[in-house]
Amino acid sequence: MNFREKNRLRGFSHERDLARKFFRLGFAVMRGPASGAKSNHIIYPDIVAIKDGVIFVFEVKTSTKDRIIYVPKHQVDKLIEFSKRANALPFIVVKIVGKTGWRFIKIEYLDITKSGNYKITPALIYNGMTFSDIISLTSKIKQSK
Amino acid sequence: MNFREKNRLRGFSHERDLARKFFRLGFAVMRGPASGAKSNHIIYPDIVAIKDGVIFVFEVKTSTKDRIIYVPKHQVDKLIEFSKRANALPFIVVKIVGKTGWRFIKIEYLDITKSGNYKITPALIYNGMTFSDIISLTSKIKQSK
Repeated sequence: MNFREKNRLRGFSHERDLARKFFRLGFAVMRGPASGAKSNHIIYPDIVAIKDGVIFVFEVKTSTKDRIIYVPKHQVDKLIEFSKRANALPFIVVKIVGKTGWRFIKIEYLDITKSGNYKITPALIYNGMTFSDIISLTSKIKQSK
Repeated sequence: MNFREKNRLRGFSHERDLARKFFRLGFAVMRGPASGAKSNHIIYPDIVAIKDGVIFVFEVKTSTKDRIIYVPKHQVDKLIEFSKRANALPFIVVKIVGKTGWRFIKIEYLDITKSGNYKITPALIYNGMTFSDIISLTSKIKQSK
């Protein structure tokens, strides 16, 4: 198993933990196919978590150190497209393993690179919404419905 | 490849077609893991299709002939549990290949067998809601929101 493959598997394992965390708190949860890529001309995000009609859609990233995390344009486009169709709230979810819990970053906060992709700085990660913030947000939206 | 394996693959291929059908009409679509079974203690249905906040959750069955289709209790329980969490509309979706299009059956119409599982008679299938019925229902619910 090479370095890249190892990273990929580590990512999946963290992603599964995140899915379980939402499931335990009463969310209905779906995970996209492991390929992460387009599958059968359908765009799948990493995780969809729904509670009482409040729909979240996530692209999940993990890192083992503080660094700028790059998100390819097609992944952000996918999140936005899915959100528009579903009327969902899209987030890039990042964890710096051993340093932070899950941090939820809104799409509009992302910086765009010269090549049209997106980047997330460590400062953005550390200031991102926490899992508890997302749970509070869910209750707030539900009440206002 | 044995008979059962062949059936399973045929089922997946039809399920993929159904997912694509919803995607083409503007739905956000997710498919559960191919195992169909419990995965990581999370319950996954076959397909979730969402449009503008209207959420459908499907367990998909195909047959090559008119017959009673049995649905194990745990699959129906899974659909109901997911629907409660998400505030979604659950359906068993059936296609008799070469004879019917997709037919959407409400859980409450299912007959219960002595062993506590569920069965769907051909009459129930032929009288089930069509794909167009589901699309109309989506618009109606959306308007009433």
